[in-house]
Amino acid sequence: MRTLRVALAQVDLAVGDLRGNAARIIEWTGRARDLAADIVAFPELAITGYPPEDLLLRRSFVADNLAALEEVAAATRGITLVVGFVDADRDGEIYNAAAVIHDGRVVGRYHKHFLPNYGVFDENRYFQEGSGAPIFVIAGVDVGVNVCEDIWYPTGPPRDQALAGAEVIININGSPYHRGKGGFREDMIATRASDYAVVVCYVNLVGGQDELVFDGHSVIYDERGQLLARGAMFREDLVVCDIDVEGVFQSRLHDARRRKDRLDVQRADRVHRINVSDVPVVPEKPAITAAIAPLLDPAEEVWHALVLGVKDYFAKTGNNTAHIGLSGGIDSSVVAAIAVDALGPENVTGVSMPSRFSSEGSKTDAHELAKRLGIRFMTIPIEEAFAASLDMLAPAFADTQFGVAEENLQARIRGNILMSLSNKFGSLVLTTGNKSELATGYSTLYGDMAGGFAVIKDVPKTLVYELARYKNRAAGREIIPQAVIDKPPSAELRPGQLDTDTLPPYPVLDPILRAYVEDDRSVDEIVAMGFDEATVQRVVRMVDRNEYKRRQSPPGIKITPRAFGRDRRLPIANRYQQG
Amino acid sequence: MRTLRVALAQVDLAVGDLRGNAARIIEWTGRARDLAADIVAFPELAITGYPPEDLLLRRSFVADNLAALEEVAAATRGITLVVGFVDADRDGEIYNAAAVIHDGRVVGRYHKHFLPNYGVFDENRYFQEGSGAPIFVIAGVDVGVNVCEDIWYPTGPPRDQALAGAEVIININGSPYHRGKGGFREDMIATRASDYAVVVCYVNLVGGQDELVFDGHSVIYDERGQLLARGAMFREDLVVCDIDVEGVFQSRLHDARRRKDRLDVQRADRVHRINVSDVPVVPEKPAITAAIAPLLDPAEEVWHALVLGVKDYFAKTGNNTAHIGLSGGIDSSVVAAIAVDALGPENVTGVSMPSRFSSEGSKTDAHELAKRLGIRFMTIPIEEAFAASLDMLAPAFADTQFGVAEENLQARIRGNILMSLSNKFGSLVLTTGNKSELATGYSTLYGDMAGGFAVIKDVPKTLVYELARYKNRAAGREIIPQAVIDKPPSAELRPGQLDTDTLPPYPVLDPILRAYVEDDRSVDEIVAMGFDEATVQRVVRMVDRNEYKRRQSPPGIKITPRAFGRDRRLPIANRYQQG
Repeated sequence: MRTLRVALAQVDLAVGDLRGNAARIIEWTGRARDLAADIVAFPELAITGYPPEDLLLRRSFVADNLAALEEVAAATRGITLVVGFVDADRDGEIYNAAAVIHDGRVVGRYHKHFLPNYGVFDENRYFQEGSGAPIFVIAGVDVGVNVCEDIWYPTGPPRDQALAGAEVIININGSPYHRGKGGFREDMIATRASDYAVVVCYVNLVGGQDELVFDGHSVIYDERGQLLARGAMFREDLVVCDIDVEGVFQSRLHDARRRKDRLDVQRADRVHRINVSDVPVVPEKPAITAAIAPLLDPAEEVWHALVLGVKDYFAKTGNNTAHIGLSGGIDSSVVAAIAVDALGPENVTGVSMPSRFSSEGSKTDAHELAKRLGIRFMTIPIEEAFAASLDMLAPAFADTQFGVAEENLQARIRGNILMSLSNKFGSLVLTTGNKSELATGYSTLYGDMAGGFAVIKDVPKTLVYELARYKNRAAGREIIPQAVIDKPPSAELRPGQLDTDTLPPYPVLDPILRAYVEDDRSVDEIVAMGFDEATVQRVVRMVDRNEYKRRQSPPGIKITPRAFGRDRRLPIANRYQQG
Repeated sequence: MRTLRVALAQVDLAVGDLRGNAARIIEWTGRARDLAADIVAFPELAITGYPPEDLLLRRSFVADNLAALEEVAAATRGITLVVGFVDADRDGEIYNAAAVIHDGRVVGRYHKHFLPNYGVFDENRYFQEGSGAPIFVIAGVDVGVNVCEDIWYPTGPPRDQALAGAEVIININGSPYHRGKGGFREDMIATRASDYAVVVCYVNLVGGQDELVFDGHSVIYDERGQLLARGAMFREDLVVCDIDVEGVFQSRLHDARRRKDRLDVQRADRVHRINVSDVPVVPEKPAITAAIAPLLDPAEEVWHALVLGVKDYFAKTGNNTAHIGLSGGIDSSVVAAIAVDALGPENVTGVSMPSRFSSEGSKTDAHELAKRLGIRFMTIPIEEAFAASLDMLAPAFADTQFGVAEENLQARIRGNILMSLSNKFGSLVLTTGNKSELATGYSTLYGDMAGGFAVIKDVPKTLVYELARYKNRAAGREIIPQAVIDKPPSAELRPGQLDTDTLPPYPVLDPILRAYVEDDRSVDEIVAMGFDEATVQRVVRMVDRNEYKRRQSPPGIKITPRAFGRDRRLPIANRYQQG
C-alpha cells in the first residue's frame, strides 16, 4: 500500500516577527520529522505572519522575509516542507506564495491565483496573480500545492492539479474565523475532495491578529469526501495523518466512467511536474492514529474565539495586564470573565466607578463578580470629579437642562479614570461595548468607548447573554451572577434610565441589525421579514448616523460575517436614505 | 472650421445624495446649454458622489442610482451629456461607468478599465473591469469617453480611441488632492494629448468627502500638448472651451510619417463607433473665451484644501458650528483660522482651558488670536476638575510620582470640556494635532485627540508654520500673532515642558517622517540621507509603536501623498523591526 504521512502544523505566528516565525517553523518541522511525516505544511504567509498589510509595501520587509525563508530552508532535512511566504520577481512585483522545501533548499514555488479583495481582505492592493499550477512528486506521490482562496473556486488550481494527476492537494490558509464558518468550510473541502477524487489537506493558521482570529481547525478529507483528521479549534495543533494513496488510485479507476471532467489544453499547459523525492525518507514508520478534534457548540466557539483574540492581542502588543470598568451589567461581566480566561485572574483588575445614579444592586453585583472571578477590585466613586466638572461648566451651561452632555460627562470621567490607571500602571483598558450598542451609537465616545481593545464589539447583545449562560454552564457554577443576567439593561446615567427608553428591545433590535449591517438588506426587505416599519427606519437611521463614532472605536474581535471596521467601509458623510 | 464646444462641469456633489446630485447635474447641464455647449461632462460617479464605498454593496443603492441617471437623461435636451454613474449587468456585477446622454436617453455607456486599488482606493472591492472603448460621434466629432485611471496608463483606452480616430477625449475624474499632484497631473495629460495627437478634456470633482478633498482643477490640453483651459482649484467651476477639431486633423496629417503607433487587431476590436449627432444642436454660437485659472503657490494650495475639507465635512454631515480648544500654540491657532475661513467667525468658538502649568503668554496669545479672528472666546480653567480627579485617584496612585498619567489627565479633562460643549450646543469639536505628533504618538488619546474632525492631521509641523505665515501674508496683517509663531512648542502639561524634551527638532523630525511614512524608506536609506542613526531608529520606533493611537484618531484631511488612515494600513500588533 502506498501511503503518504502528512503533518499539518497549525501554529500561532506573529505579524512582522520574521525571525521568530522562522524559528517556530523550524521547531515544528522537527516535531513533524520526529513523527516520520513525509511532508509538513504551514499556513499561508507563515513567514511574515498574516495579514502583514502595508508592511508589504516596504522593500526591506520583503527582502527580510526572503532571508527568513532561506533560513528555514537551510535548516530543513529529512522531510519536505510547504510554507507560506512572500515571493518577489525581478521587477519587484510580489506574490502570496507557497515554497516547497526539501533537503536544505527551496525546490519549488507556487503563486496564489485568486486574491481575495472583499470583506477584510485587500490582497489586490499588494499581490500579483499567479498562473502556474505545479505538481510536486513527494515520496513518490503527486501532490498539488495551492493557497487559501484558490480552493474556494470550483474551477481553480486544485481542479487543474487533480485532473492532471495529483493524488493529494495541500492547501495552506490564513482564513479568519466568524460564527458558523467552520462547518461551511468543511462542507466545501469535502465537496472539492470528492469532486476531484483527491485527498485535500487544509491547514489553517491559529491565533489572534488585531481584529481577526484564526481558528485553526485544519482538516484532511479523503477522495470520497470523508473526514480523515481534524485539528483543534483555537489552539495550536500538529495534525498527522497517513494517506492511503492507493485508495485514491482505486477510487479514480472505479469512477472513471462517470468522470467526464477534463483539462483543456490551455489549462494543462499551466500544470508542470517537479520531482522532489521518489521514495519516503523514512520507509518504516511508527504507527499513528489521526485525531479528529471535536466541534464546539455555537456559544462555546465564540467564547474561545474571544479568549484567544484577547490573549494574542495582549501577547503580540507586549501587554500583560488589563483594567476593566465593572458596572454590574452583563457586558462588563462577560468581558471580565473572558479577560480572566485569556490573561489569568492575577492580571485583571475590575474598577467600579459608581455615580449618584448607580443603583445599590450595580455596586454589589460588580463586587460579587470580581470575587467570583478572583480578580483585584477597586472602587473609585466619580462624584467628586463629576461635581467639580459640572461646577466648572456651570457658566457655559447656564440656563440649560440636564441632558446628554451631563450623561456623557459621567461616562467620560470613567474613561479618564481607567486611562489614568492604564497610564500609571502600564495596563491596557478593555472596553465593554457590544455590537448592538456600537451599531446604534448607544455609547459615549471617549467614555465607555475609551480603551485599547473592544472585546465584544462584534457580539450582539442577545449573544452576550448566551455567552454569560454558556460560561456559567461550562464552569459548572454561577460565575456571572444570575442577578446580572436577569436585570433590565441600563446605562444608569440618569435616574431610572433603561436601554429600552432609546432602543427597541434587543430581541427585536438584533435581527434588524443583522439584516441591515451583515446582510445589506433594504428597509423594505427587513419590513417584509416581519418587523414594524417605523422601528426599522429608526434603527437604520441610527446605524447610518453613528458611523463617526465607530470610526474612533478601539479595535475588537470579528466574530460575525461582517464586523464594523475594515470589514464594512462606509462614508461618514453619507446622505443616502432609502425609500 | 470644425469646432466642438465642450463644457466641463466641476461640481461639488454629496455621497449618497442621489436625487440631490441628479438635480445639480440637471441644473449645471442647463447652464452649459445656455452657453451653447455641444457637450457637458461631469465627474466620475457624479450620480452617487465619490467614493461611495460599501454603499455599493447594497442592491437598493445601485438601483436608486440607475433611477437617478434616468431622471437626468429624461431632463436632458439640446446638449450631449457625459456623466459618471454605477452601471450594473444582469448578473448584478457593477461597473464604474460613464453614460453618454442625448435627447432624453442614454445612448451609450463606457466601463472603466483600470480600477485603482492602492492608496485610498479600493475599486477592485466593488467593480468589474470594463473592456470596450467606444467612440461617440457628437456634433460630427469623434469623441472617446473614458474614466479617471484609464488615462494614467500610456497604453490604456484613450490610446485605443485616439488611434482609432477619436479627435477629442473626455476623461471624467474623482481624483483626490495631495500636495503637488496638480502639476504632475497636468504634465501627464499634456503628454497623453501630444502622444496621441488628440485633445484631452479632463474634468475633476471638487469638494471634500471625509478624509479626501477633490481639487477640481479641470483642464483641456490640445493635440500639441498646449493648455487651452483650466478650471479653478478648490471651488466649483464651469470650464467652457471651443475645440478646433480641424487643427487635430491637420496635426495628424503633418505628423503622419513620424507616428508609427498602430492598433493591433485585438485592440481595434474593442473600439466601436456610436453615432449620437452629426451636427451641433446650436450651429451659431455666441463667442466665448476659455478661462485659464491661475495655479496656487504651495502653502496657498494646502490652505484652500483644508478650508474646503472643513467646509464640506460640516456641510455634508449636517453641522454648522465648531468648538476649538485654544492653547495659544501654533497648531490650534492655525486650525482656528482655517475654521473661520471655512465656517465664518460667527460659527467658531475658541475655548481656553488653562491649567496650573499654563504660561501667562499662552492665555493672552489665545485670547488675542480669538479677537483677531472675531470669534467667540471662553475661558474654562481646569484646575477644579484636575484637583478633584487627582484627589479621586489618590488612593490608587499612592506612592507614585507625577508622570504621564497626570499629564494625560489634564489633556483628557480638556477633551471632556470640549465634548461637553459639543453635546450641549450641538457643535463639532475640531482637534488640533498635526501629522508630526500623530506619527510619533505625541498626543493624548481622548485628550487633545478628542473631537469630530482632525483638520491638520496630515500637515507636518514645519508646514503648519508655513501655513501660519501664508495666512498672515494673504490677510495683509498679523492674524496669527507673531508671538505664537516664535515661541518654542510646548504641551504645557508639566513645568517647563518643551516638545524637544521628547522629539527631535521638527526640521529634523519631519524629513525623517516623510521618508519613513510617505516614501517607505528603510532605516538604512534614511541614515544615508544624512540623519543620525540613533535618531532615525528612535523616530521609526515611535511611529511603529503608536499605530494604536492613530487607529482611534478622528478623520482629517489628506494633503500629502500618504496620509494616516486608510491610505496607510498597518497592523497594530506588529513585531517587524528593521536591521
